[in-house]
Amino acid sequence: MSVSIPISQQFAIGIDIGGTNTKFGLVNHRGDISYHGAILTHKHERIEEFIDDLYEAIIPAINDSGGIEVIRGIGIGAPNGNIYKGTIEYAPNLKWKGIIPLADLIGKKFGVSAKLTNDANAAAVGEMTYGAAIGMKDFIMITLGTGVGSGIVANGELIYGHDGFAGELGHTITIPGGRLHPGTGEHGSLEAYASATGVARTALEFLDRQPYEESLMRNYAREEIDARVVYECAMEGDKLALEVYDFTGKILGLALANFVMFSSPEAIIFFGGMAKAGDLLMVPVRETMEKHLLPIFRNKVKLIFSELKEADAAILGASALVWEMKQA
Amino acid sequence: MSVSIPISQQFAIGIDIGGTNTKFGLVNHRGDISYHGAILTHKHERIEEFIDDLYEAIIPAINDSGGIEVIRGIGIGAPNGNIYKGTIEYAPNLKWKGIIPLADLIGKKFGVSAKLTNDANAAAVGEMTYGAAIGMKDFIMITLGTGVGSGIVANGELIYGHDGFAGELGHTITIPGGRLHPGTGEHGSLEAYASATGVARTALEFLDRQPYEESLMRNYAREEIDARVVYECAMEGDKLALEVYDFTGKILGLALANFVMFSSPEAIIFFGGMAKAGDLLMVPVRETMEKHLLPIFRNKVKLIFSELKEADAAILGASALVWEMKQA
Repeated sequence: MSVSIPISQQFAIGIDIGGTNTKFGLVNHRGDISYHGAILTHKHERIEEFIDDLYEAIIPAINDSGGIEVIRGIGIGAPNGNIYKGTIEYAPNLKWKGIIPLADLIGKKFGVSAKLTNDANAAAVGEMTYGAAIGMKDFIMITLGTGVGSGIVANGELIYGHDGFAGELGHTITIPGGRLHPGTGEHGSLEAYASATGVARTALEFLDRQPYEESLMRNYAREEIDARVVYECAMEGDKLALEVYDFTGKILGLALANFVMFSSPEAIIFFGGMAKAGDLLMVPVRETMEKHLLPIFRNKVKLIFSELKEADAAILGASALVWEMKQA
Repeated sequence: MSVSIPISQQFAIGIDIGGTNTKFGLVNHRGDISYHGAILTHKHERIEEFIDDLYEAIIPAINDSGGIEVIRGIGIGAPNGNIYKGTIEYAPNLKWKGIIPLADLIGKKFGVSAKLTNDANAAAVGEMTYGAAIGMKDFIMITLGTGVGSGIVANGELIYGHDGFAGELGHTITIPGGRLHPGTGEHGSLEAYASATGVARTALEFLDRQPYEESLMRNYAREEIDARVVYECAMEGDKLALEVYDFTGKILGLALANFVMFSSPEAIIFFGGMAKAGDLLMVPVRETMEKHLLPIFRNKVKLIFSELKEADAAILGASALVWEMKQA
C-alpha cells in the first residue's frame, strides 16, 4: 500500500473465522462495512484450499474499492488465535490440526500485512476502536454465547500475556468441584454455568430436581430447551425459568467480582446472545458482584452492552487490528 | 536536581510505610542501599508531625551523600497507596484517616518529586528493577505474609486499573461460601487461607477436627500456633502439620490457575515469610495449579522466589518507582 493515500480512503479487511463460516468485510476507519461476504470454513480440508477460496471471494471487493493499494491490511479473528505468532494453535473446532501460520499465509497470498488474534480479543479491540469502549483504557469484554470468551484491556492495551493466550476468563474456576465442563474436563469453570449451554443445563437440572414444580419449560422436549426458551419462559413470569437466570447471574457476578479485583476495569462490556437477557441476568450479576467486592471497588464498575451490531462485530473487531498495525 | 549529574551518581530515596515502622534508605540505580533508617509510624497522630520527623531523620543521609542535588526523587510504598493520586486512602492500619495526599506533602517538604504506590505494587516494581523479574514483561508478584498481597505486570507495565486499585488478588473468592475473613467480612477469599494467619487458623481447625490424631503442634498453646510453628512441626515430619501445608498449597494453586488464565504471566514470583515454606507449599501449589489450567497454559509458568533480601525489599521496591519517574 502506498503511504500517500489518506487514511479516509483506506480500507481494512476484517476476517472472522468460525467453525462453520468464515465471514469478511471491507471496513473504513470509522467502522462502516462496505462489503460483506462469507465462505464455508469446514469444507476445506487443507488450509491452502481455504486461503485460495478466500482470496477468490475477497478479490472482487478489493478491485471494486480501488485495488490492493487502498487496503491498509488484513485483520483476522480466529479461535485459538495467537497475536504474537499470527498462528491458530490446536483449535478444537477447526479441521486444520496443529499450528497454522495463518497470518503469514494470508499476508503472502494478498500481498499486504496481516494480523491475527482470537475472536474474543478481536471483539475487545473492535469495541475500543468503534464501539462502547472508545476512550477507555481499562475494561473487560465478556462474550456470553455458546461459550464464555473474554478480552482484557489495561493501560489502553490488550493483555496478551507472555505467550499470547491471556484472557481465558470463561475457564477460570468459579465453583471449585462444581459442574463438569464436558469440553475441558474441568469442574466449576465459569463457562459451565454462564454460557448459553450452561443455562440450558441449569434449566434441565432445576426441572429434574423439582419434579412437582409447574413450569412453562415443561411444554418443551428436553432437547428443545435452550437459553432462548428459558428466556422466553422467564419473560412470561415462569418461576423456575426466572430462578435459572437468577442462579446464572449470581455465579457470573461472583466471577466478575474476582475479575474486578484483578484489573480494576472502568467497565465490563457484554456481548453475545446471552447478553440479550438484559436485566434478567444483570440484576443478579450486579448485586452479587458488588457484594463480593472490597469496599474500594464498590459502585464504580459500569456494566454495559456492546455497541456493535452483533452480525458485524466479529468482522469489525478483526478489522480494528489493522488500524493499530504499524506500517511496514 | 540538576540533570547534568550522571545517573550513576544519583540516589533514590525509598520509603516503606508500615503500621508500626516507617523504614527508608538511599538507593543507587543498581539497587545498593547506602543508608538505612527508621522512625515509628504510629506515634504520629498528625501527618504533618510524621513528615517533619521523617525529614529530620533522612536529611543527614542526604547531606552525607552529596546534598539534595543528587536525589533523583522519592518513592513511597504504603498500604492502600494510590499511584494516580499519590494518596493513601482509608488505610485500616494507619492512624491518619480518610484520604492523605502523601506524595504531594513529602515532595513539597523535601523539594523533590515523589511517587507513591501500595506496598505490593512496589514489591513488583522492585523485582522488575533489581530482582528476579529483570527483563520480564508479564509476571505476577504474590506476597505471602500476614496477608496476601499482589502486584501484576503485563506488557511490561504494572496494572493499576482505572482507579489505581488493581491487583487485590488476596481478596478474590477462591472458595465461595468458605472461611470468613474477619477483616473484610467476605467468605472464602484467598487471604483467609493462604496468609500466615490463614495457616495458623487451618492448623487449629485440623487439631480440633481430629482430636485423637497425635501432633507435635499439641505441644504448643493454641495462641502460640502460628505459621512458623506449623512449618517447624511439618519439617519434623508431623502428619497433621504436613496436611496443613498441603491444604493451603492446594487452595493457593487453585487461585493461581485462575490468575494465570487471566493474564498468562511468564512467572509467578513469591515473596514474604510464608514463601519460606518452600517445597512444603510449592509442591501442592504447582500440582493443583497445573491440574486446573487449560492445556495451552500447562508447564509454562515459572514459580519462583523473590531475589530481593526480605529486610530490604520494601525500600528497594519503593525506590524503584523513582527510576521510572519522568524528570520534571
